[in-house]
Amino acid sequence: MQVEGKNFRTVWMEKNSVLMIDQNQLPFQFRIHAAKDHLETCAAIRSMIIRGAGAIGSAAGFAMAQAFLEAPEKNQLEFLTAAKQTIESTRPTARNLFYATDLVYSHALQASNPTQKAVAIAQEIADKDVEDSLKIGKFGNQLIPANAGILTHCNAGWLAFTDFGTALSPLYLAQQQNKKIFVYVNETRPRAQGAKLTAWELHNAGIPHAVIADNAAAYFMQQGKIDLVITGADRIAANGDTANKIGTLEKAICAREFGIPFYVAAPTSTFDLHCRTSADIQIEERDQQEVLFQTGLSKNGKIEEVMMASPGSSAFNPAFDVTPAKYISGIITEKGIIKASKTEISRICK
Amino acid sequence: MQVEGKNFRTVWMEKNSVLMIDQNQLPFQFRIHAAKDHLETCAAIRSMIIRGAGAIGSAAGFAMAQAFLEAPEKNQLEFLTAAKQTIESTRPTARNLFYATDLVYSHALQASNPTQKAVAIAQEIADKDVEDSLKIGKFGNQLIPANAGILTHCNAGWLAFTDFGTALSPLYLAQQQNKKIFVYVNETRPRAQGAKLTAWELHNAGIPHAVIADNAAAYFMQQGKIDLVITGADRIAANGDTANKIGTLEKAICAREFGIPFYVAAPTSTFDLHCRTSADIQIEERDQQEVLFQTGLSKNGKIEEVMMASPGSSAFNPAFDVTPAKYISGIITEKGIIKASKTEISRICK
Repeated sequence: MQVEGKNFRTVWMEKNSVLMIDQNQLPFQFRIHAAKDHLETCAAIRSMIIRGAGAIGSAAGFAMAQAFLEAPEKNQLEFLTAAKQTIESTRPTARNLFYATDLVYSHALQASNPTQKAVAIAQEIADKDVEDSLKIGKFGNQLIPANAGILTHCNAGWLAFTDFGTALSPLYLAQQQNKKIFVYVNETRPRAQGAKLTAWELHNAGIPHAVIADNAAAYFMQQGKIDLVITGADRIAANGDTANKIGTLEKAICAREFGIPFYVAAPTSTFDLHCRTSADIQIEERDQQEVLFQTGLSKNGKIEEVMMASPGSSAFNPAFDVTPAKYISGIITEKGIIKASKTEISRICK
Repeated sequence: MQVEGKNFRTVWMEKNSVLMIDQNQLPFQFRIHAAKDHLETCAAIRSMIIRGAGAIGSAAGFAMAQAFLEAPEKNQLEFLTAAKQTIESTRPTARNLFYATDLVYSHALQASNPTQKAVAIAQEIADKDVEDSLKIGKFGNQLIPANAGILTHCNAGWLAFTDFGTALSPLYLAQQQNKKIFVYVNETRPRAQGAKLTAWELHNAGIPHAVIADNAAAYFMQQGKIDLVITGADRIAANGDTANKIGTLEKAICAREFGIPFYVAAPTSTFDLHCRTSADIQIEERDQQEVLFQTGLSKNGKIEEVMMASPGSSAFNPAFDVTPAKYISGIITEKGIIKASKTEISRICK
């Protein structure tokens, strides 16, 4: 996507370095972070300079390629195995990360020029992520009527992938086609990725939008302002039950109550056929500080946090919830739009 | 209620001054603000040092009494009429405010000792508010089983009234009776009155609770943790449609989806029979800054705000939403628990 007139991906490789947009500085500053070796790339993933399923996958592939570039001739295999473990330990629940390290590692080791092959495979992983996002955009755009009001939750835009994203990719295409859409952006407490990242993306792309408190989604549905809800997904079970950022379930229930289509946009790599239903999906409980505090730009221009809850109180902070398949109108994948059903999911995952 | 071992009301009169808990400093500091004359009380209402339907009503009654104390013998009536207008202009949509000023003004002017009468009537208004809250507590407590998980939204506790509150009054009684309740406190963005005021009240009363992001309510319902939802109300139409803090509608829809009883607690003065249905209720759109920024305690111990949204983006900020009567299991009033129906509302308002 373009930023200040220049094309950017979320993460890319230049010579031996991995470059990435520093998402810890967004939306307040646009900075490129350079990780000079695989350990620096690991540190960037760990500290969430880069985040989001697809973006983490690409970064991990590049980190593995960096390890091949750095590996000493003597003990090459030991070095690479240790590097792979280090990369995989950065965000242990991110599926795309393991997929990327495995692919680069195994394919490169079999090649006549492992280092060259590792860089090539890592690049292919990133390119495939972009390609899938573009396809999701094309399929999803078919669902968007002219003048549509669209609600989205959290950030499943290009910052979460290598480019274009999933939930936001159809919106970029609709905008290009001058469909005159308007986007309602759930701020998505506690981490406010909607207010911070999705709003930044949409502003940057010139798409008319407004941030709303998460509490206000049903109000705008009731007012007839929302024609369509599109969110991303963190993991989709074999029966279509979908884990995504906390609050997705509420929006899905309300959408059905008001007869508004609710779509999930995700590449087929998000399907986890080992999970039969939502009962098999583990929900991560994150630090309560995320709820009790809010990070943002202070008046002195620094990124700081303020305590926004009563000092004597604690908080619960489930990071995700599971939306049962019955609330989902369809899943927009790179292979087409399918129903959130066991039959269609097993067909498309073949 | 008790604070640090001493009994407090939200607002009270001592000699010619109106004293009140400074709610702009809560939950970070507990301070008493003294308004020495009716103009200072008006300023306190305007700047939200005191807020909440019942608390504003009591403060307005006391302010009117202050005006009687201050009125010069010459031009007494002119002074009082001007004072009444000034008080009523502080929060022009607050119904209780007009009720209180009218009552003090008209009754006192008919009395042999108008000043004495004004102070007495103002005190009666405050006492009646406390009495109604206690009755609501008793009726509401009947709905609370032992070990109940209770979800509440925004702040309809004692800080919003003169004492005890509406939605929280039943919880205080349940706690006294050792019912071992646990309260899930919606933080209630954008102003976070749940995280700030309700959490402070519950902590202060020793009631086990946790703050949750507004997004997480449906998750805890799905997990079977919530047995009951109780919220306050800002205005209830003749058919039971209820305007309350933004987000109430979402929680009500989700509660019904999971088969969880959803109760509104409010004194009968909240019924507005001039509004036949929700269509007659105007929703206040507040400043977008409330959504784009979050106020809280900074690391240097000052109350400051941080920008939590992308600087190029704007926000929509509807302050209230309307929950249709069909989602409401019942309304807890000082006269008993009624159905959210035209028949029962017109009966109880007689």
